[in-house]
Amino acid sequence: MANEIVTAIKHVDINNSNVNCEDESDVVNPWNVVSKSETGIDYDKLIKRFGSSKIDDELLDRFEKVTGHPVHHLLRRGIFFSHRDMHQILTMYEQGKPFYLYTGRGPSSSSMHVGHLIPFIITKWLQDVFDVPLVIQLTDDEKFLWKDLQVDEANQLAFENAKDIIACGFDIEKTFIFCDFDFIGQCPDFYRNMIKIGKCVTYNQVKGIFGFGDSDVIGKISFPAVQAAPSFSSSFPFIFGKANLPCLIPCAIDQDPYFRMTRDVAPRLGYHKPALLHSSFFPALQGAQTKMSASDSNTSIFLTDTPKQIKNKINKHAFSGGQATIEEHREKGGNCEVDISYQYLRFFLEDDEELKQIEKNYSSGELLTGELKKKLISVLQPIIAAHQECRAKVTDQIVRDFMTPRKLKYGYC
Amino acid sequence: MANEIVTAIKHVDINNSNVNCEDESDVVNPWNVVSKSETGIDYDKLIKRFGSSKIDDELLDRFEKVTGHPVHHLLRRGIFFSHRDMHQILTMYEQGKPFYLYTGRGPSSSSMHVGHLIPFIITKWLQDVFDVPLVIQLTDDEKFLWKDLQVDEANQLAFENAKDIIACGFDIEKTFIFCDFDFIGQCPDFYRNMIKIGKCVTYNQVKGIFGFGDSDVIGKISFPAVQAAPSFSSSFPFIFGKANLPCLIPCAIDQDPYFRMTRDVAPRLGYHKPALLHSSFFPALQGAQTKMSASDSNTSIFLTDTPKQIKNKINKHAFSGGQATIEEHREKGGNCEVDISYQYLRFFLEDDEELKQIEKNYSSGELLTGELKKKLISVLQPIIAAHQECRAKVTDQIVRDFMTPRKLKYGYC
Repeated sequence: MANEIVTAIKHVDINNSNVNCEDESDVVNPWNVVSKSETGIDYDKLIKRFGSSKIDDELLDRFEKVTGHPVHHLLRRGIFFSHRDMHQILTMYEQGKPFYLYTGRGPSSSSMHVGHLIPFIITKWLQDVFDVPLVIQLTDDEKFLWKDLQVDEANQLAFENAKDIIACGFDIEKTFIFCDFDFIGQCPDFYRNMIKIGKCVTYNQVKGIFGFGDSDVIGKISFPAVQAAPSFSSSFPFIFGKANLPCLIPCAIDQDPYFRMTRDVAPRLGYHKPALLHSSFFPALQGAQTKMSASDSNTSIFLTDTPKQIKNKINKHAFSGGQATIEEHREKGGNCEVDISYQYLRFFLEDDEELKQIEKNYSSGELLTGELKKKLISVLQPIIAAHQECRAKVTDQIVRDFMTPRKLKYGYC
Repeated sequence: MANEIVTAIKHVDINNSNVNCEDESDVVNPWNVVSKSETGIDYDKLIKRFGSSKIDDELLDRFEKVTGHPVHHLLRRGIFFSHRDMHQILTMYEQGKPFYLYTGRGPSSSSMHVGHLIPFIITKWLQDVFDVPLVIQLTDDEKFLWKDLQVDEANQLAFENAKDIIACGFDIEKTFIFCDFDFIGQCPDFYRNMIKIGKCVTYNQVKGIFGFGDSDVIGKISFPAVQAAPSFSSSFPFIFGKANLPCLIPCAIDQDPYFRMTRDVAPRLGYHKPALLHSSFFPALQGAQTKMSASDSNTSIFLTDTPKQIKNKINKHAFSGGQATIEEHREKGGNCEVDISYQYLRFFLEDDEELKQIEKNYSSGELLTGELKKKLISVLQPIIAAHQECRAKVTDQIVRDFMTPRKLKYGYC
């Protein structure tokens, strides 16, 4: 067991049978993330295949220099590992030129798990650092199209998920959250951009990019235009007026196909190509070849879990990189690379020194798996408790306020 | 020349190269209407192929009995020749059950020609007879997708076309006119129906129905859902509240593919199948194999033409079913079946007796082509002058009023 490699499989719905399978490569698209290799997703290969750029020390140094902030540990530790045009965004920031942030979520279940927080944690941090407007798209239409859900169910999931997102601490004066089923019917300019994008992209292209097939429904086939539209500031005239601003999109790398397509289309529409920050996937509790699924309460830690549930799940299910016996562990040491508890600490333990010490001690065998799990439990429990406390304060009215199309505190209009 | 048969070719944009060609059959789809046969479109065959029903005397008799009105000459003369579920609509009317009318237009040019009036003339008459709500869709998004137009240009064409439509005499208290680029962004329920429809129809289906190909853009591929959505009363909650009403769609037969698809989808969504009244095509001035094109001012009579232009166009271009010389004509008589002037009189001359007399006299050779053309000119000039007078009174504000989503005079809300 110990030498098995964790293959991170993102929470996905694999009811789309027509995924783009590339020989000998990992499959990474918005509906399917799976590695054929025992070493898991090869992120360096992915950068090459997708044509993005590695987030290297030079970029991180420049980030710190330009913003005057130490970079977030999710960047520092390579969890956000790839980008497109991030240097341009930093140059704009240097020059005092405006841009905005865009991220989103497909609301597939009412309880989000800890992995779902990652893009929002970095987005909140980016918003604090850059002080720019943020739009968050909840693709309830996508989830309706891909899952066995009614429109109202998908819409309600979006509303519930918005509470968890708001609980991450977004500033209402800087943030507009919307779900497609409500917002598209409130904003003719958004629909115009959808159709403009839909005029630039052929079926052949979405077939190649997303792996759509001839028996896919037309709603799915045209959906990429819906996720592309928020990349253009003209989709939000109440925020940006007539300004044509570039945006920066923090997201998991599986969403990149949408934005490769968007970047291809942007110049033809007279818009800026969106810049991107790509994160790696949040591994499932049980590690290798296991799909992290919100419908299986044992594979992930939910934002609604009690301290006891968190403890039990980690103790029971978190894949261990330790050895079979204490003696063997003391002798050979644990394997941090595959140990889920250690991996989760990389996401959630902010203290670099402490993390380094844990890695050292676990690798040497000084720290036992039980002790490592205990550490993760002690880190996650307060984070999730604090999240729950914040979420409890998010009333329906606050969600509606975030979701009201309106001018933000910035003066583009 | 005289024995050539008129092949009516509707004003279409053939920049879609992927039309569904069926061997030995006429091609009839929303973007292409062309007959390979010298005898023109075979409407009886079309009824068989499309699976619709012929409008027969029994239906017309019942129509008159149920409504207490003599049927409109466009019905009486078989210009509207095919239907789906019209008996059900009559039964609903008999029983005092509510339904509504839906028709539309793709705004491809600012000046509509006389043929464009046909669906609106019958729709106005149906609205008067049945006293029911009417929704009119202007598919500016479709024209943007299919033509070399900017969004604002297509939108402006829709606005201009709305003036011609309103000039047909629609009652503002019973009629809601909308263009997609504006309305879809004002009505979340409409977008929900678009996506519900888009979840029920596969690429394979639209490929078969509309002849889409793999190099068609995704905007086109999903457009059928946009034209289908107004068939469901829930797309207009401000008019119909939560009522689930069936609708009757008067349209040219080339639009039937949209509604065959809609009828297939409706029961799966818990909606009524739309009923239909299909018209034949309005022939081009120049007859056989000629495409009636708004971009060629010689092939059609525009609603903006002066009396002199009307006279000149008919005299110069209206294809004649007469003989080469007066002597020959007197001897052999003219062929009404192919004579464009006679055909146009079938559309616009209301008096049955007079039309019958003209047919008799022209066929016998008593009436010369010049005299027949003179008659058509004398019929069309006042119709178009009256239309222009009505249109001049349609201010921008009146258009905006018709286009404002609102409760009509009916009490469903």
